[in-house]
Order: sequence, then structure tokens, then C-alpha cells
Amino acid sequence: MDNLSKYFEVVDQSKQEFIDKLREIVAIPSVSGDATRRQDVIRMGLWLKEKWEALGAETKRVDPGMQELQGQTIPLPPIILGQYGNNPSKKTLLVYGHYDVQPALKEDGWNTDPFELVHNDKDQLVGRGATDDKGPVLGWLCCAEAFKRAGIDFPVNLKFCFEGMEECGSEGLEEVVRHEADKWFSGTDAVCISDNYWLGKNRPCLTYGLRGVSYFYITVEGPSADLHSGVFGGTVHEPMVDLVHLMSRLVDVKGKILIPSIYEKVAPLTLAEEKAYDGLDFNHDDLAKDLRSNVIIHDSEKDTLMHRWRLPSLSLHGIEGAFYGPGEKTVIPAKVTGKFSIRTVPDMDPAEVDRLACKYVADEFAKLNSKNKLTVKMVHDGRWWYSSPEHPNFVAGAKAIERVFGTSPDLTREGGSIPITLTFEEALNRNVLLLPMGASDDGAHSVNEKLDVRNFIEGIKVFGVYLEELSKPRVPLTNSGDQQQQQQQQQQMVAE
Amino acid sequence: MDNLSKYFEVVDQSKQEFIDKLREIVAIPSVSGDATRRQDVIRMGLWLKEKWEALGAETKRVDPGMQELQGQTIPLPPIILGQYGNNPSKKTLLVYGHYDVQPALKEDGWNTDPFELVHNDKDQLVGRGATDDKGPVLGWLCCAEAFKRAGIDFPVNLKFCFEGMEECGSEGLEEVVRHEADKWFSGTDAVCISDNYWLGKNRPCLTYGLRGVSYFYITVEGPSADLHSGVFGGTVHEPMVDLVHLMSRLVDVKGKILIPSIYEKVAPLTLAEEKAYDGLDFNHDDLAKDLRSNVIIHDSEKDTLMHRWRLPSLSLHGIEGAFYGPGEKTVIPAKVTGKFSIRTVPDMDPAEVDRLACKYVADEFAKLNSKNKLTVKMVHDGRWWYSSPEHPNFVAGAKAIERVFGTSPDLTREGGSIPITLTFEEALNRNVLLLPMGASDDGAHSVNEKLDVRNFIEGIKVFGVYLEELSKPRVPLTNSGDQQQQQQQQQQMVAE
Repeated sequence: MDNLSKYFEVVDQSKQEFIDKLREIVAIPSVSGDATRRQDVIRMGLWLKEKWEALGAETKRVDPGMQELQGQTIPLPPIILGQYGNNPSKKTLLVYGHYDVQPALKEDGWNTDPFELVHNDKDQLVGRGATDDKGPVLGWLCCAEAFKRAGIDFPVNLKFCFEGMEECGSEGLEEVVRHEADKWFSGTDAVCISDNYWLGKNRPCLTYGLRGVSYFYITVEGPSADLHSGVFGGTVHEPMVDLVHLMSRLVDVKGKILIPSIYEKVAPLTLAEEKAYDGLDFNHDDLAKDLRSNVIIHDSEKDTLMHRWRLPSLSLHGIEGAFYGPGEKTVIPAKVTGKFSIRTVPDMDPAEVDRLACKYVADEFAKLNSKNKLTVKMVHDGRWWYSSPEHPNFVAGAKAIERVFGTSPDLTREGGSIPITLTFEEALNRNVLLLPMGASDDGAHSVNEKLDVRNFIEGIKVFGVYLEELSKPRVPLTNSGDQQQQQQQQQQMVAE
Repeated sequence: MDNLSKYFEVVDQSKQEFIDKLREIVAIPSVSGDATRRQDVIRMGLWLKEKWEALGAETKRVDPGMQELQGQTIPLPPIILGQYGNNPSKKTLLVYGHYDVQPALKEDGWNTDPFELVHNDKDQLVGRGATDDKGPVLGWLCCAEAFKRAGIDFPVNLKFCFEGMEECGSEGLEEVVRHEADKWFSGTDAVCISDNYWLGKNRPCLTYGLRGVSYFYITVEGPSADLHSGVFGGTVHEPMVDLVHLMSRLVDVKGKILIPSIYEKVAPLTLAEEKAYDGLDFNHDDLAKDLRSNVIIHDSEKDTLMHRWRLPSLSLHGIEGAFYGPGEKTVIPAKVTGKFSIRTVPDMDPAEVDRLACKYVADEFAKLNSKNKLTVKMVHDGRWWYSSPEHPNFVAGAKAIERVFGTSPDLTREGGSIPITLTFEEALNRNVLLLPMGASDDGAHSVNEKLDVRNFIEGIKVFGVYLEELSKPRVPLTNSGDQQQQQQQQQQMVAE
């Protein structure tokens, strides 16, 4: 029996124990967005610290400071750093995860107590945090325990970084990552994050790209105070009317962005990339079922995924300052702010997106000939992220999935952003692999969040094989000093 | 000295006493929208009842029932009905007013305690309810007292109807008016309401028209729940995008309604009517100063007033279901409801406005080719009201103003609606005169609400002369059985 077969056997034998461990930590309501739960969040962080120390890891608790939340000043949860093994002849992997969870109340529509893990008859583990992100975070611990129990030398040096504020914007994390880059994290060869999801419900995936997001405010203001529409309707320039005209000119009903030149920098589709869209575990029937409505714009799955992953989009989120409640109110709002965002993709430049969008809105406003006052600005931008599935870190992940699931992984991108991915890549100058454990229907952030037992147990196996694969003397993980440069070369190669 | 000179003398002599009475009732915080103040509202109603009884009036307290407010079940404030004098040889006037007030807190920006009347150095009476509507309601009582004190026979039989729910939709009032039409209110020859304002700050006015309002909801719904714009942006039909496109097609930036045929039924402008717009106490400089911004659409005062009084307008009030808070949220709202209303004027028919607007929105939605679902409906309509300033009731009001102020009144309409006007006209089939006491800058519903001493004291004089004028054997007040018919004839006459 080879090392990995032995490892698999121990993982299978420990299944109930691992599930019970997950039950133990789901029971800690580590809701970072609720000030009254802050002690539970801290308790959860210390639980991880203690368990890893018991296994022999060296750890460090970093307290990033205080926070104002719901009228209270409370400590931010600790960031738990760790080092498991320190053999200079081994490669060093850094894993990131978060131990805080979204809020959950039985009254929200849960079938069971959200903080009591239920192993149901569909072989699912139901509970808040099961898949986001307690299952994966616990997975690394289970992986290390199984190696130890199997008496197999751990294949790599493992560093970890577990935070407790991910559901609230990861406050304090970026500074810690940048600060520790050449300290606690020095010597890192590659990074792995397990905090996203499979594309579908059946086939595992590796994720190599994320869209960025640039968020804009359009403010139109007129009179100094809200007006009565009886007295003033028809006689003054209404800020809402101007705003609605401007918002209607941003994007058409089929999702095409109307800002001139916005698509110019979008990376052209290469043949190789186009091929990667074939045969993915994704179909419109499932999507329409999830949406409970067929409001899908595109005819083919490929088109839908391209519009999610590799093309920019523009969404209108809402309006601040206008009437929003139920019932009727005959107000002319004096000052309204329309909010929209653009999802950005390679090779769009956020600064140029900012310039193009603001100029276009200002130009369109000038055409309106209104006496109201316009302000338009970008208030936030997060860059897109794009890696290469050919990188040895990804190849190791792919081989692990092939070994455990008997199938090659889907290679996916995501439409949303996971800002910490870019932070690790930039701060450590190392490749980052997104290696999800959960499936697309897990319902992270929703009611009845779950993690399939299969995903949990086979996911722990994948982690183990991945470490084994990383440890092999393949192309060195860190041969490319400049990740950005490497990916551009890659794109050029496939483009040629 | 004639009767009226004597009356004026008594009013002037009683000035401080009348101001003190206003101080007494401003101190009763009869805020109808605050459940904790309900006992104060009731106390205020009973104060009026008691004072009128002391003067010799017969009164009746009508309790319209219970109300759910802020989680409590509380009694609606009483409607105080009264009859002062019952001489069959005299004409009978019904006056309406309300004794409840808008909420007010010092913290809202008041310079002084809102429930403590301040007589300031500009000779203004500052306090919540001073002008809306405690001053005018008290005015009728002061008027009767002054006649009595002067030893002059009261010129008419006075009926009154004072309610305590006007600031909260006059709950319960309409039923009472219709029920009492041939009971308590039987024998009424004319109606007078003093609950609106002069057009400007200098010249008194009589008001002979109000716009109606038809309120609409446009609902667009797509997916069954809000979506993440990262995952779904660019791939699904976004309800907000559809809605914003529809809303942008309702009205242009200059206030022109884009619904086909909507202007067809608007009564043509007659020469006589156009002339009435000349020389009114109204100018754009004052308006811009009030708005603290020059966002006035039209070039001339006449155009502005026509767009306020005799032309329809369409205002966009807001959107329910979209993101409305401060900050950034990357949501794709699943279901959004746009709210807009159309101010209607003679001779628009609300049913036709409903049909035209809903059909237009549905047609425009069809053009969008969206897979989302549309619902559009009119949720409320209040009719416009139009009387004739030639009616003897108005002529009596005009003569009173000429006598007291030495100037003929502006003849005005209002852009907003006062639904009770139409209720009285329809239920009693009698002419209704709107005879405001306060000026345009009184700030009803706002902070530092005030009533000028001049408006209060001279207003009481106007009431007295108006009653005298009514009592004269001019054209009988009630010769036109059908008010609606009369006004149509009138319009035709001037149109020819």
C-alpha cells in the first residue's frame, strides 16, 4: 500500500470523528457582524490555535486592534498564524481560510438550528459555516492529523493564516499580510485558498481567475430640501428624473455596457481559452432552477460563462436619497445618488475605467441641459485576478483531484472578487491556487447552508494528495519572480 | 361707526388676548402621527368643544373608532361638530379646520421650543401649528367672540367641523361628512376652508382650483431572490435595468410627460383665464431663494404657475426593493417597484389616465424584450377640483379681503390636493371657498413654523367681513344644484 492509500484509509476511518469536530465548531456562533457574538469569534480562533499546537504546530496570535460595531468598541478577532513543520529541504505552502461566519437565525427560514450541525439523510452536513469556511479550514487540520495517524511524514512545511473578519471585509488582514510577508510568511513557495465553490454539483474545479469591481456614485442635486410634488411638480428640474435618464444610458437590457471604449482593453479570446469552456459542469437548466425563473440573457452556457468570467458587466444597485419604503409618498427628492458597479476583467485598467465612466456620465448629463448639479465618482476599485492553470501549483491541484475523484477538474474563473487572493499574490510574489471544497448548491450566506459529506471527506483527501504532489521535484514553484509577467507571456503564447 | 368698524376695533383691542389663546393651544402637542401624543390630540379637540359651548354653540363629539398606530390600538381623535346660531332667516356657513399638527422636535432645527409660542421681533408667532391649522381654526372662535363683545348680531348661522387626523390622512372623516350631510350639515348654504396659503408673502388670495393625483407602481421582477452582481452580472436580465429604462421614458428633463395622448383632455387656456395670471404676488427670485437653488424649468412666472396649476406633471418618487442605504452593496435586486405620480387637471379623467399610463408602460416594456415580469398599476387617485371665482361665495371672500387689506385678492389654484374640499362639495352639493390665512413662507410642516401677527389679526377681520358679505341678499348661494355642471358651463362660457 502506498503512502496515499494509507492516508485515504485513515481519513475514511476518521470520518465520523472529523464530522464531530465540524459539529463542535459549527456550535461556536462566530458571527463577525454581530457585536454580541465577538467573544464567540475570538473563542473560535483560539480553538484553531490550540488544536494546531496540540498537533505540534508553532502559532502566533495577531490582534489587529479595535473596531466600532453597533455602537460598541470591541477588539477585532485575532488572526491566527501557524507553522507546521520547518524542514528546509521541503517546500513551504501557505494556506488561508476564515473561521467567522455569516449571521443566521432559525427564523430566517432554516429547517433546523443553524448552529447545530445536522447530518441529514442526503448525507449532507447542514449548519452555518459548514461550507463557508469552517469545513475547509478544519480540512487542513484533519489532513495533518490523518498524516500523523497514518505515520507518514508530512509532505511540506505548512504555514497558515486564519482570520475571523472575512464576512465583514477582512478588516485588518491586508496590513498583517503585508507586514508578515518577509517575516512569518517568508520562505513560502506557494499559496492555497479553499474558500470558493465548484462550478456545479458534480465535478471539482480549480479556479484561476476573478473579476475585479469598480463602484461608482452618480449624485444629482437640485433644491436644498425635498419638495412636495403637488406644489413643484412640472416646474423644477427633478434630480430623480435626471438620474434615471443617466442610469438608463449606462447599460442596455441585454447587459451591454454603453460606455464608449469600455470593451477596448478586454483581452481577446484565444482558441485555447475558448476550448476550456467546453464540457464544464454547468448548464442553464440548473441555473434557471436555482434562479427559480428563466431570466438568463444568453442562449448558450458558453456565452453565459464568458459573460460571468471574461467579460465586463455593469449592474445598477439602487438609489440613495429617493423614497424607498412601502406605500405612497409624493416627494420630489432633492438629492439622489445612483449606485452602479462595473465588473472588470483582464486587461482593463481601473484608472481608465474610472476615467471613461465618469466622462461618459458627465457628457450625457451635459446633453440633458438640466440646471441640477452632477457629481460622479468612483468610490472603490478592486483589481481583477488572473493566474495560469499551467502553473505547477495548479498542476499539483489538478493531479490531486484526478487521483481522488477520477476526473480532471473543471478549470474555472469566478465573476466575483476575493480580494485577499490578489493581496497574497502581490505581497508574497507567489502563485495562489483557489482549490474549493464545497459545491455550487451549498448555500453559503443563505439559509440551510450545507457541505456534502463527500465534499468534506474527499476534499480532505484532495488536500493530502495536493501536498504530496507539491513536494515532488517538478518545475520549481517559484521560478517566475514576476507572476504578472508570466501570465502575460502565457496569454501571448496562446494568442499566437 | 358701522358694525364692521366696531368689529375691527374689538379685534384690535383683543389682539394680545387672541395671541395668548393661540399660545395656549400651541402648547397642547396634538401630534396625530405619534401614538404617545394621542391624549393631547383628544384634549385639543375637547378644548375647542368647550370654548364654543361657552360661547353658546351647540356641539357634538363624533368618535370615528379605533386605530392601529405604532403597535398600539388607540382611539381616533374626535371630530367636533358645532352649530352656532340657528336662525332660519340667516344663511348657514360650514367651516372646516383641523386641530392636529405635524410632529416637531427642537432637535429638528427649531430655534425655540416648537410647542411654546414665541412672538418674535419680526412680529411673527412661531410655534408648531401656528399657521397649520390652529391659527385659522382659532380665528373662527375669535371672530365669534369679537362679534359678541362688540354687541353685533352674528351675521350667519355657523356650522363647524374640526378634525384631529388631517396630518395622517383624515382617517374617518369622509364617512362622517357623508353620513352627516343631511343631518348635522343639513341647511348648509356654503362651505369655507382655511387650510392653505397665500401665493406670496404680501397679497391675500382666494383659491379656486386644486390638481388631482394619480399614483402608480411599476414592478419588475426576475429571479426569486437578490443576486450577487459578481456571479450574475452580465448574464441575467436585471429588474433594475428594465425599471430604470421604463422610468426614463415617462417624463423628460424639462417635465414634459411622454405618455401619448396624456395632454389631450387638458382644458384649453381661455383668454380670461390667461389674464388672471397677470400681476400675481409671485416671482422667480423669491422662488429660487426658497429653493436655495435656481432649478426652475420655465422662463416666466406665468409659465411656472400654469405648470403648477393648470397643466399635468409627472414626478418620479423612488424605488422600493433596490439598495437605498449609504455605502456600497453589490446586489442585483430581484424585484423592484418604481413609484411615480401624475398630477391631474381639468378635464382629465383619472380612469383614462390610468389606462393611458399603464398601456404605455406595458408597450415600452414589450419593446425591451426582457424576460423579467412586469406589473403596472394605479394604486390611488384623487380627483382635481375646480370652482369658479365668480361664485357668490368667492365674491363674498373677495369683498372681505378688499375691505380689510385694501387690495383685491390674488385668484389662485394649487398644485397639490386637499381631498376634503371635493368631499364637502360632493357630499353637500355646495360651493367651497378656500380662504387662506397664512402666507407662503409660513413653513407649515417645516421647522420654525410661524404665522405673522398681521395675517392672524387681519385674517380674523376678513372672516368677519366675509360673514357679513355672505349674509347680504345677493344671488342666492345655492342656486346651482349641480356644482359640477355649473363649473363646466362656466368653463365653456369663457372658452367661447
